[in-house]
Amino acid sequence: MGHEWCSTRRRSAPVDEFSALGSEALHTLREELRGDYARFRERGLKLDLTRGKPSAEQLDFSNELLALPGDEFRAADGTDCRNYGGLHGLPELREIFSPLLQVPVEQLIAGDSSSLSIMHDLVTHAMLFALPGGSTRWADVERPAFLCPVPGYDRHFSICEKFGIEMIAIEPTAEGLLDIDEVERLAASDPRIKGMWFVPKYSNPTGTTVSEQDAERLARMTTAADDFRIFWDDAYSVHHLTDHRVTIAPIVALCEAAGHPDRVFVLGSTSKITFAGAGVSFLGTSPANLQWYLGHIAKRTIGPDKVNHLRHVRFLKDAEGVQKLMERHRASLAPKFAKVQEILADELGGTGIATWTEAFGGYFVSMNVLDGTAAEVIRLAKEAGVALTQAGCAYPYGKDPRDRNIRLAPSFPPVADLDTAMRGVVLCVKLAAVEKLIEQGQQG
Amino acid sequence: MGHEWCSTRRRSAPVDEFSALGSEALHTLREELRGDYARFRERGLKLDLTRGKPSAEQLDFSNELLALPGDEFRAADGTDCRNYGGLHGLPELREIFSPLLQVPVEQLIAGDSSSLSIMHDLVTHAMLFALPGGSTRWADVERPAFLCPVPGYDRHFSICEKFGIEMIAIEPTAEGLLDIDEVERLAASDPRIKGMWFVPKYSNPTGTTVSEQDAERLARMTTAADDFRIFWDDAYSVHHLTDHRVTIAPIVALCEAAGHPDRVFVLGSTSKITFAGAGVSFLGTSPANLQWYLGHIAKRTIGPDKVNHLRHVRFLKDAEGVQKLMERHRASLAPKFAKVQEILADELGGTGIATWTEAFGGYFVSMNVLDGTAAEVIRLAKEAGVALTQAGCAYPYGKDPRDRNIRLAPSFPPVADLDTAMRGVVLCVKLAAVEKLIEQGQQG
Repeated sequence: MGHEWCSTRRRSAPVDEFSALGSEALHTLREELRGDYARFRERGLKLDLTRGKPSAEQLDFSNELLALPGDEFRAADGTDCRNYGGLHGLPELREIFSPLLQVPVEQLIAGDSSSLSIMHDLVTHAMLFALPGGSTRWADVERPAFLCPVPGYDRHFSICEKFGIEMIAIEPTAEGLLDIDEVERLAASDPRIKGMWFVPKYSNPTGTTVSEQDAERLARMTTAADDFRIFWDDAYSVHHLTDHRVTIAPIVALCEAAGHPDRVFVLGSTSKITFAGAGVSFLGTSPANLQWYLGHIAKRTIGPDKVNHLRHVRFLKDAEGVQKLMERHRASLAPKFAKVQEILADELGGTGIATWTEAFGGYFVSMNVLDGTAAEVIRLAKEAGVALTQAGCAYPYGKDPRDRNIRLAPSFPPVADLDTAMRGVVLCVKLAAVEKLIEQGQQG
Repeated sequence: MGHEWCSTRRRSAPVDEFSALGSEALHTLREELRGDYARFRERGLKLDLTRGKPSAEQLDFSNELLALPGDEFRAADGTDCRNYGGLHGLPELREIFSPLLQVPVEQLIAGDSSSLSIMHDLVTHAMLFALPGGSTRWADVERPAFLCPVPGYDRHFSICEKFGIEMIAIEPTAEGLLDIDEVERLAASDPRIKGMWFVPKYSNPTGTTVSEQDAERLARMTTAADDFRIFWDDAYSVHHLTDHRVTIAPIVALCEAAGHPDRVFVLGSTSKITFAGAGVSFLGTSPANLQWYLGHIAKRTIGPDKVNHLRHVRFLKDAEGVQKLMERHRASLAPKFAKVQEILADELGGTGIATWTEAFGGYFVSMNVLDGTAAEVIRLAKEAGVALTQAGCAYPYGKDPRDRNIRLAPSFPPVADLDTAMRGVVLCVKLAAVEKLIEQGQQG
């Protein structure tokens, strides 16, 4: 296995075919592609590859939830789930997810439907109230900053932008992995740097997974800020696409062993396990962090929706129940991801105008097109009725410095629509590349 | 009806009997009461009158929800409620509550289970981002302040305390109503005063309801702050205890007519209609306020739990369905409130050591005992196994200046337990009063 488990499955090897074409050949190719594009546009399609939304078929897997908990309303300890109370969430739900998120059950709490809300509230409260180990609230720090491995998740970046937290992009290594040296260097050097966004497994959008060594270095590293926090968004912990069920290091235990128990917030949810809009979420962290968070959140709520917790307990039963459900998701998703790979390889393989990721899990394919053409590809696709996520979405402030990254989200449309949409996308990638190469030739 | 609809039903008339007793009679009475108290304490009870929690019987009324929405998951407009999206909440749910909360459906949004969370988030965001009409965020205001009619709701006050917002208590008029003159005077005089907590109907804890005239004056009044907001917590809008279904003025319309459309946030929830811990909540306000709120909240969530919205739509059906359900609650609650009134009248009527409210609706009885004895009553009750809400809970910072107010919450225990608990409470009220009168006699 070697380092494979901490990486993505493969990337296409650029062979520079397009850039090797002479001017005349490029012009001929442009005419062909313009014709193909015009015909594609005439079809008047309306297809959407923007967000990592589960498909209706996937949501159907959890339809049992719609009639649960039935006539039961008591938790294992006798709690009436219908009434007020219980900030931690149901113990039996936390027990199911404790091994999956690798957080001891007493350090794991369950919330309402969205882990995004927990992340948002953690940052909000850190802005307004000093964290354990910290001496000031972030609102009183001049230009607080976060490390943001790129490409990354736009909704993480939106939270920073909202609160005026500066985002420092961390470009990946040549292998597409986390640049841990750069993370260590920056975290150690600048007390303004208060945190880091990180999707440790099957990441959004590149599908990479953190290595055990890098997880250990994150836990051990020296930080200039005494209240540095890693937002360890384990959104895809059980979202495998192959037989190779990738595992990651238990970060809560690593941080504790490294003498930095308060360093990490582990986030998770069932948004892509049960119902995207009606699931349950989790926060796992140190006792001190938990006390800080619960103390603040107690002024906001008398407790999460325990009936929904009970509903999920009855449906999922145990950690193995979650894994079994995820096998059904995989069976639905894997052919879609295979279709994307097939079309990308067939149409763009060897052209040298695009590279892309193929992940062991998660929800996305991250594609890099020819520098300076991503926005144009997205514009062309949009005009032809194929919606792609906004250009630059995977970068802080929506600014992709090389204008090359496109996030593909194949989960929602049926395979036939996905096929059509992807054929349109690769056409746009080629057309934009040829236009750019001709433009560069004219300038050169 | 006259002004009756805007007030509570009646208060006991103090006749000063205890204070008229001579020293010897007081000492005899003390010996009797001490004996009664000792015997009561020996029973080793464990009863709870602390919070306005619905009883298990009340929660049973909504047990249909436990198996809903069944096999349906589509909203009226075809939306798949299981998936992401829809910040406003289901239109059909908002339609049910629009007439009840007197907010046009397009200005009313539905959220997750707690209106407390919406109030908390409104204040949080107002601290960090200027409100429509405001030029600065509240965090940049020196000593921002809120008007707090007392006695009031402790969870409102906790939000102010959390964010360092100064609370200015507004004592009621001699009739126990809102001192609107004082509210107008303060709001007009001090730009630091940014808001006001207000439960307009069957208020917590006194059960009072705002008059149409006072509502109009709140809408019309001049405020020194250009971003003054009334948090109109209509928590008990349909929570009647008598045939007299009290109505209140439509504050959103009044504010609009008065040229202050952004003045009010209307809050509501089904916490005391369906399930206290698993209901739905509402925010009704001006289009500008709504845009401000949704813009900020969009970074926190991809939308509320729409399956729970659908569940409530299927169960409640329409506004009349809500009213019918509330009739069942009334049938369960009214005998409990009657029992409290009966015991208070029998045991404390004519003693001159306590006054209390009798409301047309809501969840509480507010009792004022002899000045300087509320904390002692609560301590005595606790030692005898009857939990009452913490002394001073209905006042900012938990400080009741006259140490006299006790909030009684009769909803949760069965009538027999309530009877026992209340007989203990009145005993403690009497014992504390006699001890105080003897102490005062010795000093005088």
